[in-house]
Amino acid sequence: MNISGEMIIGHQILRGSAGVVRAYDPARKQDLEPEFGLATPSDLARACELADAAVEPYRALPLEQRARFLETIAQRILDLGPLLIERAGQESGLPAARLEGERGRTVNQLRLFAKVVRDGHFLEATLDSALPDRTPPRPDLRMRKIPLGAVAVFGASNFPLAFSVAGGDTASSLAAGCPVVVKAHNAHLGTSELVGKAVLQAALECGMPEGVFSLLIGEGNQIGGDLVSHPAIRAVGFTGSRAGGLALAQIAARRKEPIPVYAEMSSINPVYLLPGALEAGGARLAGAFVDSLTLGVGQFCTNPGLVIGLAGPQLDAFRDAAAAALQLKPAGTMLTAGIHQAYDNATAKRAGVSGVQLVANGSQEGPGCAARAALYQCDAATFLANPALEEEIFGPVSLIIACRTEDELLAVTRHLEGQLTATVHAVEGDHALAGALLPLLERKVGRILFNGFPTGVEVSYAMVHGGPFPATSDARSTSVGATAIERFLRPVCYQDVPAGLLPEALKDGNPLGIVRLVDGEVKLA
Amino acid sequence: MNISGEMIIGHQILRGSAGVVRAYDPARKQDLEPEFGLATPSDLARACELADAAVEPYRALPLEQRARFLETIAQRILDLGPLLIERAGQESGLPAARLEGERGRTVNQLRLFAKVVRDGHFLEATLDSALPDRTPPRPDLRMRKIPLGAVAVFGASNFPLAFSVAGGDTASSLAAGCPVVVKAHNAHLGTSELVGKAVLQAALECGMPEGVFSLLIGEGNQIGGDLVSHPAIRAVGFTGSRAGGLALAQIAARRKEPIPVYAEMSSINPVYLLPGALEAGGARLAGAFVDSLTLGVGQFCTNPGLVIGLAGPQLDAFRDAAAAALQLKPAGTMLTAGIHQAYDNATAKRAGVSGVQLVANGSQEGPGCAARAALYQCDAATFLANPALEEEIFGPVSLIIACRTEDELLAVTRHLEGQLTATVHAVEGDHALAGALLPLLERKVGRILFNGFPTGVEVSYAMVHGGPFPATSDARSTSVGATAIERFLRPVCYQDVPAGLLPEALKDGNPLGIVRLVDGEVKLA
Repeated sequence: MNISGEMIIGHQILRGSAGVVRAYDPARKQDLEPEFGLATPSDLARACELADAAVEPYRALPLEQRARFLETIAQRILDLGPLLIERAGQESGLPAARLEGERGRTVNQLRLFAKVVRDGHFLEATLDSALPDRTPPRPDLRMRKIPLGAVAVFGASNFPLAFSVAGGDTASSLAAGCPVVVKAHNAHLGTSELVGKAVLQAALECGMPEGVFSLLIGEGNQIGGDLVSHPAIRAVGFTGSRAGGLALAQIAARRKEPIPVYAEMSSINPVYLLPGALEAGGARLAGAFVDSLTLGVGQFCTNPGLVIGLAGPQLDAFRDAAAAALQLKPAGTMLTAGIHQAYDNATAKRAGVSGVQLVANGSQEGPGCAARAALYQCDAATFLANPALEEEIFGPVSLIIACRTEDELLAVTRHLEGQLTATVHAVEGDHALAGALLPLLERKVGRILFNGFPTGVEVSYAMVHGGPFPATSDARSTSVGATAIERFLRPVCYQDVPAGLLPEALKDGNPLGIVRLVDGEVKLA
Repeated sequence: MNISGEMIIGHQILRGSAGVVRAYDPARKQDLEPEFGLATPSDLARACELADAAVEPYRALPLEQRARFLETIAQRILDLGPLLIERAGQESGLPAARLEGERGRTVNQLRLFAKVVRDGHFLEATLDSALPDRTPPRPDLRMRKIPLGAVAVFGASNFPLAFSVAGGDTASSLAAGCPVVVKAHNAHLGTSELVGKAVLQAALECGMPEGVFSLLIGEGNQIGGDLVSHPAIRAVGFTGSRAGGLALAQIAARRKEPIPVYAEMSSINPVYLLPGALEAGGARLAGAFVDSLTLGVGQFCTNPGLVIGLAGPQLDAFRDAAAAALQLKPAGTMLTAGIHQAYDNATAKRAGVSGVQLVANGSQEGPGCAARAALYQCDAATFLANPALEEEIFGPVSLIIACRTEDELLAVTRHLEGQLTATVHAVEGDHALAGALLPLLERKVGRILFNGFPTGVEVSYAMVHGGPFPATSDARSTSVGATAIERFLRPVCYQDVPAGLLPEALKDGNPLGIVRLVDGEVKLA
């Protein structure tokens, strides 16, 4: 398969005529071939209208066919072979091994959602029996979830596969029964085209209605705003910057009919080093911390951007060990020239904050858009007084906060904004302090982890990749894991609907064989 | 118990000092004793701060204690006896039998949520086993839902008990583990005080932390905006006008940390009369329709404000029978002078729309704020051309749309805004048309009912009292029924959290004995 610079609108592969844009190789600092044509407003309208037209036929298909569609997408992505990894590597600067792992995760995610679709548990089928002899009589009431309608998906720069064209938002939307219009991320246009064509191929093979998937190429904020404003779009999935997510949320709220926006935006992911854990293995922790900090050149939503501990010789020893480990870490190529520039500006600014000391840098800058890791330190008072220290810097940078007392550590915690994750390093002797910390952290984050590092987000049933604002725009949801499907569903109740007109999920005898709630009791199939 | 004109802030019963307001008897058109004192800004702040302080201790209580609190509230409301019904009748103009029924519903709702709390199913406990031998190893992952924090509740004028101080929003918030700050509706201040004191008494008896419930009295929009703006408030439950709901949603979206608003706003609840059903029993349907239309002087969110059928002799016969039935219906006292005035203005305006004919009025106006029911008719073209005809008029008014063809009937359906309900009257021979209508209605409404009328909303597991905008501000939820609790929860994931620090709901051995999802399989207790 060649990369042709085209987008996908329904069943058509075509070249946009509103100008051109190219992908960029951040390691070599050069534009990549070919040119990609930009979507016109009528391209965008057509993609949205086709998606809207696909809502009814797509959701009416048997769940088994929907599940096979997801599995076929996974297979067609694998079929792209080394070409996909190579192009994604050129466009992102990410190494092949990382991209192969990310491809595996993308494929597993599609397969997990296929299982979720087959299970049918996501329909939340609920039946309340009629009580004709009650005064007043109770009608027969049944409830299931239905898809919201077409979903706009915005891919993230830092996961060109797992959070992009066929990533978590697309997989969970399609699983929910929602057609998808993806806005390709300009940092990986060729990767997007390849994956988009794999999705189209799967859609054609599986007999999907035209419009179940489109892929638009555009530049700047205009196309994003136009997409979120289009009346056919009923929900938005976004992973990216706080400014970008907030802008889309505001556009969505100003629509004639407001729609939900699931924006995963920014997080600095505090890591707590409790005294016993530091005593038991501070040096080992320092090495693992630096590995997590610099993984993927720090370009993870879950990058550990904050380390919180009690001031003293053991925190100093951790700091010194981390500094030593960090200095050995080579500079790494960042995803885009813009991200690299923003990183350099933000770290320079941080170094200038009164009360903040530079602990160490990674090894000196390399060629291309290579970022040097950085570790800073300050005391709790400095952190509490400087809101800027809580802003996410996208890249391999972290800040150690040395608290004088446990109370100060808890005060810093209460002060934190919403986060995707919080990590606690604790041994048995730390459990009293950890127990005091836990309820505070629950109110602040989507995932609490012990004795590990937050990078690495498992795709499973219990995962929550979400959290209070500004980590996301909607803390009631997750963008990773099986329950991500719930974002694109809403309940409908059927009262005294004749048997022949009931949806399969709600018919007597449970023909789909799904778990249902019957008169308040969970009934297995 | 006397009505003292006081509000409730935490454990204190006190008189607001920011001015006074009185309740009003709409039947006698006169103010009611006593004067109620209005909350100062510091009263509001104190209620919110106490609610925030109560979040941790309240959610930490055993579920059994939370359930008993809900049941005790129900009992203390019943203990108020005839005084409550009498005062609610004076303030609302609603007859005693209706208010006794509403009290029963309010009490049943609290008891249903007590059962929901005990079941623990709402926690959505989910466990994924560790896979230490996998590459990379999978950690131990567990998830449960936690409460969002303090909730602001705005009662509705039309249900002084079931959608007010201890109504569905309060019951579901408290069930979720969220403290509540209620803004009393000024249309039933005395009723609010009585119920508020019953809640406080239950809170004290059950050893609830101070701040789990407060009741504020205020006038105008200022107090509502201040309440929604307060940083301690983490979600809003509202039932009322479209303008009111949208204003609160905008305030919530502009907060530094935006919060969810569940506003149930406006709906005209289309009723479809399919040809076979009209033929089989048009006259009987007309009588039942008029009963539903005029129930509670039409002051229901689910009032049938639109009747859609195919033009012809049978629809004419229905219309004539409805006209005859309507003319016999006495005028009824509306809830407030303002609602009465708005109803008179809106019906007068509707009568003047070109293409709209008056079919019949109810019997002539009575004393007090008495509203005369009204039935209008137009053709589909008139309806499609006049957006004003789709606006809710709160009261006993409806509009018959005579469609020339089935296609026109479907076009009217596609044109409709979001609604709480849609009703289909159909016999076996109508099922082809009903089948074509159903998927369109699913996309438009929260509840579809057959061969009944939409007034009367059962409180059960499968109920959905919600629907797409503008029926509500958030179609993903319901304000009535067991799943209303989900509005006030969000998921938290626990990764490798030591056994001793895990929440009870997620511990090995399932000590709470709740339904859990374990490695993707539903496990009964």
